[in-house]
Amino acid sequence: MTDTLRHAAGNGLLHRRHFLRGGLAVTGGMVFARARASDRPEWMRMPGAPMSTYGSTAGAEGHVQRLLAGAQPGTTGSGASLTPLQHLEGTITPSGLHFERHHSGVPAIDPERHTLTIHGDVQRPLRFSMDDLLRYPRVTRQRFLECSGNTRPQYNDAPMPHTCAMLYGLLSGSEWTGVPVSILLEEAGVAKDAAWVVAEGADAARMSRSIPLDKMLDDAIIALYQNGERLRPENGYPVRLFLPGWEGNTSVKWLTRLQVSRQPAMSREETSKYTDPLPDGRARMFTFPMGVKSVITSPSPGLTLGGPGLYEISGLAWSGSGAIRRVDVSADGGRSWAEAALEAPVQDKALTRFRLGWQWDGAPCTLLSRASDAQGAQPTRDALLAIQGARHSYHYNAIQAWHVNADGELANVYA
Amino acid sequence: MTDTLRHAAGNGLLHRRHFLRGGLAVTGGMVFARARASDRPEWMRMPGAPMSTYGSTAGAEGHVQRLLAGAQPGTTGSGASLTPLQHLEGTITPSGLHFERHHSGVPAIDPERHTLTIHGDVQRPLRFSMDDLLRYPRVTRQRFLECSGNTRPQYNDAPMPHTCAMLYGLLSGSEWTGVPVSILLEEAGVAKDAAWVVAEGADAARMSRSIPLDKMLDDAIIALYQNGERLRPENGYPVRLFLPGWEGNTSVKWLTRLQVSRQPAMSREETSKYTDPLPDGRARMFTFPMGVKSVITSPSPGLTLGGPGLYEISGLAWSGSGAIRRVDVSADGGRSWAEAALEAPVQDKALTRFRLGWQWDGAPCTLLSRASDAQGAQPTRDALLAIQGARHSYHYNAIQAWHVNADGELANVYA
Repeated sequence: MTDTLRHAAGNGLLHRRHFLRGGLAVTGGMVFARARASDRPEWMRMPGAPMSTYGSTAGAEGHVQRLLAGAQPGTTGSGASLTPLQHLEGTITPSGLHFERHHSGVPAIDPERHTLTIHGDVQRPLRFSMDDLLRYPRVTRQRFLECSGNTRPQYNDAPMPHTCAMLYGLLSGSEWTGVPVSILLEEAGVAKDAAWVVAEGADAARMSRSIPLDKMLDDAIIALYQNGERLRPENGYPVRLFLPGWEGNTSVKWLTRLQVSRQPAMSREETSKYTDPLPDGRARMFTFPMGVKSVITSPSPGLTLGGPGLYEISGLAWSGSGAIRRVDVSADGGRSWAEAALEAPVQDKALTRFRLGWQWDGAPCTLLSRASDAQGAQPTRDALLAIQGARHSYHYNAIQAWHVNADGELANVYA
Repeated sequence: MTDTLRHAAGNGLLHRRHFLRGGLAVTGGMVFARARASDRPEWMRMPGAPMSTYGSTAGAEGHVQRLLAGAQPGTTGSGASLTPLQHLEGTITPSGLHFERHHSGVPAIDPERHTLTIHGDVQRPLRFSMDDLLRYPRVTRQRFLECSGNTRPQYNDAPMPHTCAMLYGLLSGSEWTGVPVSILLEEAGVAKDAAWVVAEGADAARMSRSIPLDKMLDDAIIALYQNGERLRPENGYPVRLFLPGWEGNTSVKWLTRLQVSRQPAMSREETSKYTDPLPDGRARMFTFPMGVKSVITSPSPGLTLGGPGLYEISGLAWSGSGAIRRVDVSADGGRSWAEAALEAPVQDKALTRFRLGWQWDGAPCTLLSRASDAQGAQPTRDALLAIQGARHSYHYNAIQAWHVNADGELANVYA
């Protein structure tokens, strides 16, 4: 059996075509009981439950939840919750499991009273009700959203004993639908010397960010729908800004104001926060695009391997600059690499699922994934820290290493 | 303003590039209040709600529900519920709003005890636990699922006063992830003269269908995940068959048995049901692929137009044979047609969103959409009935007409 498998790199990595074309029979690695007669279970002996107006998850899947990362002191709703990436598949995150990051909790907005105002350096200040916005032409885009603080624990000197969700769960993928910002700005008539747009939310924190006008005219969306239905409250209902590929904080939720201006606002969230201190004491501001990045979601810490045999290594790759070009996987700590299969269609600034077969021999080893976009590949951790210095806390995108011990248990390590 | 819009067909249909490129300013058709100072609403004056482990929809969107089409007499859970297509956007249906069709309700399956058995004309009968199945390589595919009884009311002699959901809501789109059936059949070793596979569910109805072996080896999936998370109970948890492009009934839910055989089983659901009576008294059986089809979801009955002006016409197109090639829209009852913009990526056997701008002059008119795949375009209702005869009740895929009256109200009509 094993002899027919084409190995693509060291320590059991199989050629990606084994999975692309379904040519992988895994009897050698699996143990199955033979078919046998058995009594019918009780759920086949009685009628089942009726239809419902809005379904929910299976009871046995109740453990698949957002991980509450803890509210910030003195607040009721500030903090974050994390997407349980290691329990999910494909590229769409269910809206109920999309990560959260709130600066003053989730406001209970009445959509009948909420408005979006465009003002500042414009010829015609405009105010839109939600019904007004719903009259405009829309676009639909499948895109990722990632907090720039995602994977921050990896800046620690020693690797934390964290799961994939705890390290990478400020990342989700959705199908977003809304009105191109460019249409509304065109209607308002932007002044010739305008260069920025300050976006403000209707939460109690009045969370605001300054966005370059070019981005707003390029691919920014006034998002009204997420995964087919109207936005969820924690994702900005009734309306949010969505900036494909940029740090999540700039996709301002509960959007109520766009102020066109010549200069950025220098708000709290772009001065004391969301800036990147450099080794020489200066700091980078307005570091918007998220870097090319990947993580193996299965296997990962908590998902223990059931002994030697065949496995699928599966994970997510994404880039704020465009489409993922390739993902390579190593099962020997980086000595050799094999190219993973990418699930089509590979879309710009969207989560991309990669897969590769692996024949684990039961010996301890280290699994890595390395994504590439048009600009190049993910850096090693050492290379990233050499550039960023020790005081960085955003935009971590180095290659992730999971160590596998002889019991099949995985752990976060620095490789 | 109006003069700058390029008209593409009669009665105000605009060229699709107006929407593709964001070059449409709609001041002429909209009325906005000027920006003005206002007191901050209460949700900006108090901290918001905390994070949650699994989010739910906004209270103001509570009307967006599955429409219960009524349980069948003498049962607790047999019948259907319909996806509220007219309230949704994009191409993904939230799993909680995916249509339902049950023959004996939703079974409460314990995934630890549920198994999938492959037997019959195979060299090695195999039984898989769910943990076994989760070890296998997976694929992810965004695909539609449509009940072959969808749009059945249009076979009535007179058009029913129905909404889009009531006519088209046995249709949903999801991202499905699971194990290619071909891998498991290869492992079992299919006999040389086998031609069919009988798939049976673990509900009390033991719903079963006979599937040609070729389809099973082509693109059939043992689906374990829907829209990123494990299947919902009403969609087959813990495992279902998924046959891209084929009538929904064949994608057997709660899958527990695949029996490889030389002949079809001639089960109830492929003899007394899910067959197509012909004008000459014979009946077609095993009519699996769903035809090319489309519907305008907005505007549609219940979504009343707010007076003359600019609107986006938006809808869904799909084909069980492959990708949608184009969608044309008419605003004058079919006298002239304009090509709609299709949201990329257009995927095989998946819901495709189309959009086209429309300048409504306030006069009564009839809106139509006509989708084409590689085999051709949707038929008119008259042409479809001429082929099918009067006793058909499945596979309705004719061009849909919505009439707009002077008050902007829409209604189902036969055009």
